[in-house]
Amino acid sequence: MEMLCVVTLLATAQITAQAQAKTNFIILLADDLGYGDLGTYGHPTIQTPNLDRMAAEGMKFTQFCVAAATCTPSRVGLVTGRLPIRSGVTQVLIPSSTGGLPKEEITLAEILRERGYATAWIGKWHLGWQDQYLPGNHGFDYYFGIPYSNDMSPETQPGNPVFKEAPPTPLIRNSTTTNMEREPDQRLLTKQYTEEAIKFIKSAGKEKPFLLYLAYTMPHVPLYASEEFVGKSRRGLYGDTVEEIDWSYGQIANALKSAGIDSNTMVVFTSDNGPWLNKKLYGGSAGPFFEGKVSTWEGGFRVPAIFRWPNRIKAGVTTAAFGTTMDLFTTFVRIAGGRLPADREIDGVDLSPVLLANEAGREALLFYYFGTEMWAIRKGPWKVHFKTTRPASVSVWGQWKVEEHSPPLLFNVEEDPGEQVNRAASERTLVEELSRVAERHRTLIVPGKIQR
Amino acid sequence: MEMLCVVTLLATAQITAQAQAKTNFIILLADDLGYGDLGTYGHPTIQTPNLDRMAAEGMKFTQFCVAAATCTPSRVGLVTGRLPIRSGVTQVLIPSSTGGLPKEEITLAEILRERGYATAWIGKWHLGWQDQYLPGNHGFDYYFGIPYSNDMSPETQPGNPVFKEAPPTPLIRNSTTTNMEREPDQRLLTKQYTEEAIKFIKSAGKEKPFLLYLAYTMPHVPLYASEEFVGKSRRGLYGDTVEEIDWSYGQIANALKSAGIDSNTMVVFTSDNGPWLNKKLYGGSAGPFFEGKVSTWEGGFRVPAIFRWPNRIKAGVTTAAFGTTMDLFTTFVRIAGGRLPADREIDGVDLSPVLLANEAGREALLFYYFGTEMWAIRKGPWKVHFKTTRPASVSVWGQWKVEEHSPPLLFNVEEDPGEQVNRAASERTLVEELSRVAERHRTLIVPGKIQR
Repeated sequence: MEMLCVVTLLATAQITAQAQAKTNFIILLADDLGYGDLGTYGHPTIQTPNLDRMAAEGMKFTQFCVAAATCTPSRVGLVTGRLPIRSGVTQVLIPSSTGGLPKEEITLAEILRERGYATAWIGKWHLGWQDQYLPGNHGFDYYFGIPYSNDMSPETQPGNPVFKEAPPTPLIRNSTTTNMEREPDQRLLTKQYTEEAIKFIKSAGKEKPFLLYLAYTMPHVPLYASEEFVGKSRRGLYGDTVEEIDWSYGQIANALKSAGIDSNTMVVFTSDNGPWLNKKLYGGSAGPFFEGKVSTWEGGFRVPAIFRWPNRIKAGVTTAAFGTTMDLFTTFVRIAGGRLPADREIDGVDLSPVLLANEAGREALLFYYFGTEMWAIRKGPWKVHFKTTRPASVSVWGQWKVEEHSPPLLFNVEEDPGEQVNRAASERTLVEELSRVAERHRTLIVPGKIQR
Repeated sequence: MEMLCVVTLLATAQITAQAQAKTNFIILLADDLGYGDLGTYGHPTIQTPNLDRMAAEGMKFTQFCVAAATCTPSRVGLVTGRLPIRSGVTQVLIPSSTGGLPKEEITLAEILRERGYATAWIGKWHLGWQDQYLPGNHGFDYYFGIPYSNDMSPETQPGNPVFKEAPPTPLIRNSTTTNMEREPDQRLLTKQYTEEAIKFIKSAGKEKPFLLYLAYTMPHVPLYASEEFVGKSRRGLYGDTVEEIDWSYGQIANALKSAGIDSNTMVVFTSDNGPWLNKKLYGGSAGPFFEGKVSTWEGGFRVPAIFRWPNRIKAGVTTAAFGTTMDLFTTFVRIAGGRLPADREIDGVDLSPVLLANEAGREALLFYYFGTEMWAIRKGPWKVHFKTTRPASVSVWGQWKVEEHSPPLLFNVEEDPGEQVNRAASERTLVEELSRVAERHRTLIVPGKIQR
């Protein structure tokens, strides 16, 4: 009897170890999709039955933030598990930028590849467009996509002097800028990315565990959807692009099932920052939150986040646990049995306790404006703002007015998600405490060389 | 073989007829709960696992409106299936009001009682507090609750001259004002209502099909929750009251299962109007919509609405079909095999095609300000505003400024749920057409005697 027990335990341990080693990870990252833009987050007319089902089969986060509220720093936070300021990848990189993700940075793909993973990045990269910065030099076996935003060419922004000298939008395959496609038909991008993703799942999934990033180009302006989706949504072209992304997730979900790897694949769906509100009907909805993209208000940082991993993550749970895209790094490394880099600060926390046992999430977050300057801190339910801006209220990029707050603003963002009622006057000790935390962080932080 | 077929068909027809006759109806109506206040509608910190599950097991409407954006006219619309102007029950009734629901009006309870239904109204009534106006005189076998709002006594509003002479809040049992309780402990109301509802389900459910209205007093200010719920929510006391309502639905769902009548009971959860925004943290969230209670903006009229009827309504569907609380009247009468009153205008439409076959819902809605004056019309996705007001921006009831719009404002509320982009200039024909519809309605409408 005792012998049998031991054998059983060993067998269980073995299966667990094997299963852990074999967990596939898929990150689906939408571009500029707001917190309020999916059915399961209450959007009234964008219909997302596949992602709603994903939430019903998995865990929906309602307090999930990004590392920064614009594309480039948000993405570097996600792929390195670190605040963008540490790598210096804080500015929105454009075609004339010569900087990118420094080779010293360690990406999730590099760690997982060492653990035997196949790795692919499909879609928008935005961490440097020259060969040395592309995913191929950062741990990804395969890359297919546009290396920066889809509005950074003279073709897509005819009147804009910033892009006058820029080349036509590049569509790169296999992390090399030789023989790439130029100014691709953007209507086909979501479909092409989906096909590439499925191809990767089918081939890589057979032999190895894998990490797949699918970073959609949509719903970033200019908006494009394929023929089947144009006019499909009641929410106009913006909704069409989101409904096509919903379709894309549905296709991927089917592919996982056909490949027989559904149960050992964790899929995460999220966004890189809040909605681009001054694009009006071409931008998304922050739902109940104030402001959007660029700002350090909740509308800029709070994004939808759905995690699905059958039999491991309990189905149909909505959690108010606090998490960020940086935490994907730490969580996936831990689940894959890898080791976190010991020679540097990692800002991601392990969300496994939330995902697997519905326990507490992260405690605090520093809100960096463009990744360069820390404007706000959240600790527990309290958020203090030292500076704010309202990009939704201006029509020209960068023309927003920055307000300094002395004393800082204080909100309880759990009780007051819309950041309406400033509690600074009645909670002075808290403001002082959080201001000290900020001061200490400002003293200790070692910024990377700013990439431009 | 042919014989067998006929027998089978007959048997099926019989079962269907029996099942139809036996469908129970439960309406759970929250008070001042906003569109954005449940987890399944994206609220970040109010946790409503029971109602979220209800949505996963049923149909969630995202374009569901009330008959008017304040308590009294909203409720008369729901119980008569008619625009409040027709009965004249348009003002918010207060303790000094002597009016109420005229006896000539036909309620859903009266029609269903004729079809053999047991009927009960539990909770807030607000259609007249004198005996002749109470539910007992309007088709309800049983009543237990507060006949008006929970803030209408000198005890609950000490400084307010309107309620200086009012009696302490009455808690009425069995539709008679003799021997009623006075100024009940409001912390216990949600629990008491729930117990009463379950008692009714258990007793009535045994013998007859039934209609049960449970109109919660919460989350209308002043907010109260029972001991177990105070401090439970991350959203403060407001969230506590909503989480207790979520608990209440959970208890009712369990009771239906224990009574073995889960599968032939249709449950609807909704609210009487949008959130009372100038109550700040004591009011709810309209989610992505503009403005709240009182206003004819979407934030005033748009409410959560979840329908659950196992095996009949497909599980986990989110529908953008247009519906209103008035439609419950028509839908339930039809499903119960009853007849709609032929001698009067009924504004409710039958939502069975949406519920049972995911087909189209209502086509249009007239937005009455307080039930007395038509300020807006929606037809298809288009909504035209002739007048608007912004009650959220004032702190004193009724002190809001009314704006007249000439030309009227025009929004595509499906493409632009937040009513941000006025399209009147480019869609003149549409504005004219809708203005003509409004004019015709104003000419034809026969207002009931205004009840005060």
